Amino acid sequence: MERRQVGILGATGAVGQRFIQLLANHPWFEISWIAASDRSAGKTYEDACKWRLSTPLPERIAKMVLQPNVPEGSAVELPRIIFSSVDSDIAKELEPKFAAAGCAVISNSSAFRMGADVPLVVPEVNVDHLDVIEQQATRKTSGGYIVTNPNCCAIGLVLPLAVLEQKWGIEKLFVSTMQAVSGAGYPGVASLDILGNVIPYIKNEEEKLQEEVAKLLGGVNDGAFAPGDMTVSAMCHRVPVIDGHTEAVSVKLKKPATAEEIIAAWRAFKPLHQGADATHLPSAPDSPVVYEEGVDRPQPRLDLETGNGMTTTVGRLRPCTLFDWKFTLLSHNTIRGAAGAALLNAEILAVLGKFDFRKYPPVNSAREESSVNA
Amino acid sequence: MERRQVGILGATGAVGQRFIQLLANHPWFEISWIAASDRSAGKTYEDACKWRLSTPLPERIAKMVLQPNVPEGSAVELPRIIFSSVDSDIAKELEPKFAAAGCAVISNSSAFRMGADVPLVVPEVNVDHLDVIEQQATRKTSGGYIVTNPNCCAIGLVLPLAVLEQKWGIEKLFVSTMQAVSGAGYPGVASLDILGNVIPYIKNEEEKLQEEVAKLLGGVNDGAFAPGDMTVSAMCHRVPVIDGHTEAVSVKLKKPATAEEIIAAWRAFKPLHQGADATHLPSAPDSPVVYEEGVDRPQPRLDLETGNGMTTTVGRLRPCTLFDWKFTLLSHNTIRGAAGAALLNAEILAVLGKFDFRKYPPVNSAREESSVNA
Amino acid sequence: MERRQVGILGATGAVGQRFIQLLANHPWFEISWIAASDRSAGKTYEDACKWRLSTPLPERIAKMVLQPNVPEGSAVELPRIIFSSVDSDIAKELEPKFAAAGCAVISNSSAFRMGADVPLVVPEVNVDHLDVIEQQATRKTSGGYIVTNPNCCAIGLVLPLAVLEQKWGIEKLFVSTMQAVSGAGYPGVASLDILGNVIPYIKNEEEKLQEEVAKLLGGVNDGAFAPGDMTVSAMCHRVPVIDGHTEAVSVKLKKPATAEEIIAAWRAFKPLHQGADATHLPSAPDSPVVYEEGVDRPQPRLDLETGNGMTTTVGRLRPCTLFDWKFTLLSHNTIRGAAGAALLNAEILAVLGKFDFRKYPPVNSAREESSVNA
Amino acid sequence: MERRQVGILGATGAVGQRFIQLLANHPWFEISWIAASDRSAGKTYEDACKWRLSTPLPERIAKMVLQPNVPEGSAVELPRIIFSSVDSDIAKELEPKFAAAGCAVISNSSAFRMGADVPLVVPEVNVDHLDVIEQQATRKTSGGYIVTNPNCCAIGLVLPLAVLEQKWGIEKLFVSTMQAVSGAGYPGVASLDILGNVIPYIKNEEEKLQEEVAKLLGGVNDGAFAPGDMTVSAMCHRVPVIDGHTEAVSVKLKKPATAEEIIAAWRAFKPLHQGADATHLPSAPDSPVVYEEGVDRPQPRLDLETGNGMTTTVGRLRPCTLFDWKFTLLSHNTIRGAAGAALLNAEILAVLGKFDFRKYPPVNSAREESSVNA
Repeated sequence: MERRQVGILGATGAVGQRFIQLLANHPWFEISWIAASDRSAGKTYEDACKWRLSTPLPERIAKMVLQPNVPEGSAVELPRIIFSSVDSDIAKELEPKFAAAGCAVISNSSAFRMGADVPLVVPEVNVDHLDVIEQQATRKTSGGYIVTNPNCCAIGLVLPLAVLEQKWGIEKLFVSTMQAVSGAGYPGVASLDILGNVIPYIKNEEEKLQEEVAKLLGGVNDGAFAPGDMTVSAMCHRVPVIDGHTEAVSVKLKKPATAEEIIAAWRAFKPLHQGADATHLPSAPDSPVVYEEGVDRPQPRLDLETGNGMTTTVGRLRPCTLFDWKFTLLSHNTIRGAAGAALLNAEILAVLGKFDFRKYPPVNSAREESSVNA
Repeated sequence: MERRQVGILGATGAVGQRFIQLLANHPWFEISWIAASDRSAGKTYEDACKWRLSTPLPERIAKMVLQPNVPEGSAVELPRIIFSSVDSDIAKELEPKFAAAGCAVISNSSAFRMGADVPLVVPEVNVDHLDVIEQQATRKTSGGYIVTNPNCCAIGLVLPLAVLEQKWGIEKLFVSTMQAVSGAGYPGVASLDILGNVIPYIKNEEEKLQEEVAKLLGGVNDGAFAPGDMTVSAMCHRVPVIDGHTEAVSVKLKKPATAEEIIAAWRAFKPLHQGADATHLPSAPDSPVVYEEGVDRPQPRLDLETGNGMTTTVGRLRPCTLFDWKFTLLSHNTIRGAAGAALLNAEILAVLGKFDFRKYPPVNSAREESSVNA
Repeated sequence: MERRQVGILGATGAVGQRFIQLLANHPWFEISWIAASDRSAGKTYEDACKWRLSTPLPERIAKMVLQPNVPEGSAVELPRIIFSSVDSDIAKELEPKFAAAGCAVISNSSAFRMGADVPLVVPEVNVDHLDVIEQQATRKTSGGYIVTNPNCCAIGLVLPLAVLEQKWGIEKLFVSTMQAVSGAGYPGVASLDILGNVIPYIKNEEEKLQEEVAKLLGGVNDGAFAPGDMTVSAMCHRVPVIDGHTEAVSVKLKKPATAEEIIAAWRAFKPLHQGADATHLPSAPDSPVVYEEGVDRPQPRLDLETGNGMTTTVGRLRPCTLFDWKFTLLSHNTIRGAAGAALLNAEILAVLGKFDFRKYPPVNSAREESSVNA
Repeated sequence: MERRQVGILGATGAVGQRFIQLLANHPWFEISWIAASDRSAGKTYEDACKWRLSTPLPERIAKMVLQPNVPEGSAVELPRIIFSSVDSDIAKELEPKFAAAGCAVISNSSAFRMGADVPLVVPEVNVDHLDVIEQQATRKTSGGYIVTNPNCCAIGLVLPLAVLEQKWGIEKLFVSTMQAVSGAGYPGVASLDILGNVIPYIKNEEEKLQEEVAKLLGGVNDGAFAPGDMTVSAMCHRVPVIDGHTEAVSVKLKKPATAEEIIAAWRAFKPLHQGADATHLPSAPDSPVVYEEGVDRPQPRLDLETGNGMTTTVGRLRPCTLFDWKFTLLSHNTIRGAAGAALLNAEILAVLGKFDFRKYPPVNSAREESSVNA
């Protein structure tokens, strides 16, 4: 596959940094454009950003100049693939502009996740939702569109749930989360608030988790999203952990299942590696769900890096006195729960040919304009 | 009320230290006897124990000599009231010996909590269970008996639940806990296991919590405990917090209630301050349940000391998509959840006259024996 | 002593909250005026402020309205005693205005600490520096002046040092600090930066610590500060601790001293309780320096509350291969290191008659003006 | 180079686990023998050990059976290279037995570090000390010997110091450490002791650090170690960090040096990659010392993995008011500070031909004996 140029909107934030880290040596994509806030446009990346990851900032990106965060006026050509990780308010304003300008906007923001014609996608779970992009108005004019990935808690959760839904059907679901501070971005949670503490509140998180799970596990009827009919109740908490959301789940199934059957189904779950569509997506883990036998697993300290942070680790499957089964899961919230999720969406879009823009008008850029003027 | 002498079995442990701290200036009780393991008998308390609390070790106790951890052979008279906080295995062996020897054993251990003739008591919730001590075989011979307080998670939880059960009835209950490391004693949880981590497993904790809540919220029929008919499902986790168990709860009631009614009922809940039995127990908080309005409360850092650690702080009452109401609670696990609970049990036993041992044979002690020999 | 009205500038910040907590039931002072930023003027305290302390916000203060942060235009009379805990940049602008308006500004800010006519005072150490306020220009016109307390690290350190300096003389001093996050205010240090981490840098902290110690341990010659002649080298670090700065010290003395002599001198150090000046300041601890014998002391978890947070706990006095003696100390950085320090300065100023403003013109206020106009 | 079989004494401990992790795919060494305590002999590794690392336990080792922790009686042939990471008391008894039996014991224990004929080695610093093994009595009889690596704090420190000593000479040195909990092994430090806390004491650590630095920076005269003549003063602290020791250093040099010269010398320091001895040791980092320019570096969270945990990261070089230069360093205490240090020692011993045992009698083992019997 030819290497495609991509841009990052919100490149200096916590998720933007993860995009840069994960794209550093990507076989299909190459960063050619970065933007952050108005304030930082014109600065080099290293001047505008306090790099917070333990792998070094790639030298090429360090020297790259931040562009204006709009489709126009860049000093370099605007790429047709834009990863977006800006705050929801800003995304609401900016992402449609990039879609109108002909870009595929692959967004980690919550702004459009529940949109009637915006797919909310985890490739292993509901890749069929992606066709709905063809209904977006901008798709027909410029070729641009918006695709979103879920909230960091919802992604890790729907991977094991998708197996249960497909095999036995999910009727009811309780989930209580213990979420890492990196989920709030940087500077995010004040240390005075969370050191040795638990905060039992994350704004809008319970609502997002409840509605996104239903959309993700639902289908598409006549081009309209049909959410799953399970009832979900979420309780969300912040804990003093750097990376890794732990979620305690109890689930009531529509049909009976044994623990052995459930674990076997999780272990067999490799939707991107099977069937006629089988392909290898560079960011896809070998196993989206790994079941850990240890009585006290999963744990952020021990299981976070499983599948390079793209796998949900599940453990402690045990009967529930109220519903059918209880289990605990762990997901890396800034990899699978954010930048890695968007990257995997981009990879499946590439494979499905959704990055074929040849019939649409080209994306404008400062450089093109000046060459036209010349 | 005259001041009574009390003993502490397991005096050097984490809960034993809390007993010493809370009894330091107690108006009704005075420590006259302490014991720990065989290994430490004969040592002074300060030599045998690494004091871990931030208030100073009382000088009188520092110099007190640890006695053998059996009813016989003490160099000082064995008091008739014994607070016990030894491990369950040891409690199973030792506590009956003290009861047989004529002591009221007020135990924080799990060994006998579910015993058919052993009261499991939180004074604000089920003080009527205390009469069952009269059925214990030792009560009839020596006057001794065993009374227990619940698991640290169950105590904080049953205070707000008792109100719901009494007014509206509880049908179903989910609880997901985030528990402090002090709940595991000292040295307890290794720092390598819990720094920046969540451990989704505490041995036997979910089972204890489920069965103890039902016993506590149940009644007594013809001298037999009749557990409550609610179904409880618990998921227990350890988090990097020093003191304070946070619990996320969802509850289905038998009769409808509004949020205003529930909060009003919690605020009105002062069972030890009302009715003919009204009395002032020194360790009883003004309000066993405090409802905090802040959207992100309760939190260990901010609410732990409410009611001197004897109050359950509740917050975030909100509707549940699955059951009726969700809320979060916080309880001090080594005060209300352990030593303070036992102390409150001792205070209510004192008020109820259960420390009147005059008709039973006196408790043996080394000193008595030597005076007999003389 | 009559009760005086006081104001707080920067009342909503981390140190401002401590002022409110410590002044809640103060026998000499009563809060009658509070101000924070322009943005919050006109709001009630509870609306403008996220209360972060574990004791409840006093009801009277919660309802108090924040005034403009300048001497003019208050809806209530401006008190003549102003506690200030605003950022250094803001202090530089605002504090002189309040002094010019006739207020005694008792500042926790670093803006004027090294000023040639501004006393930098710890009452047990250099109370004689206070006379220098009489040289301030505003003192002569309006009666107003500025008095400062040191940086949070310097205060805890100079208490044990003052004893060494007075008895044996200090020649050289190394100090390596491990400072709590509350020292950076709120929101202050991001949790992503400090959870499970050490940050070996606090802006300007090493310079402040080095120069303030010399000023504090110096004298006054002909009305000019004469800094002590010891050489100080500081290395400052942030660690994941909520409250409590730990400092590792090595000191070279001018005259030989034994460990026993040093510990005895620290224990005998009660400068505010001795001599003709002897008085009882409400915030003064019984012992400014407590020596802890335990081999692994002092520790923030165990020793923070000693002397209600106003005592420096010292431990591990041992010989140094390079200098003479090494020891470790702990000081509560938001009590003795900030609000409590300013409060103690106010108390000593009260006792010394420095709050006698009768010969100076009265402080203007909106209310006075309107009564004049009426 | 042929692949050699190696054994691990203390294989289930924290450092033992690191040995297994680092040896998993080692090009020169293959684990063929493991032992832990008497209690675990005969068990498989996975049954005897709670694996605490975030990379998976290699399957081959999981099924390997723990042997007796003495040279005799193994069910498998005893290899001639033994990595040892047992406690000092046990090392004192066991390591000489393995040396007597003909093994090269490469020890992480402190038991023999200061021995008159035992090299204490960091390959980049004092490889010439290794010749002293020829003086060990066992070397002459069985070919066996003991080589040690330093304390976890000393290793990280001597790498940048070696450069200073070689170029300018070190006269005096202050070092204040902030050490991770993994340095105390498992279970090691109780979470109740260290969460949100600093412990200013680690038993014997200051003494070890002081004397080991002098031995490491010293030479060998007529076969006797001649410690360096610098004076070292250490103050050691435990902080709530999982991995990574931070050290604040102030140094007085014998000859003047500028900051630029020092940083350039650190960056040029590649002793294992230069000269006639130049070779590539698999565990040697490209740069033993990396200087980080960031004003707030190094930090455990950001710099721990530099050089795969084998590099000392240095930062904040700045003048000292007392000595010449202050700086901060970070070293991975369980990789470069323990298992990685021993592994690098083994690699340099291999290159230097110190694993050529052909002239000494073969090592006995159960298997050899049985083949003899057959």
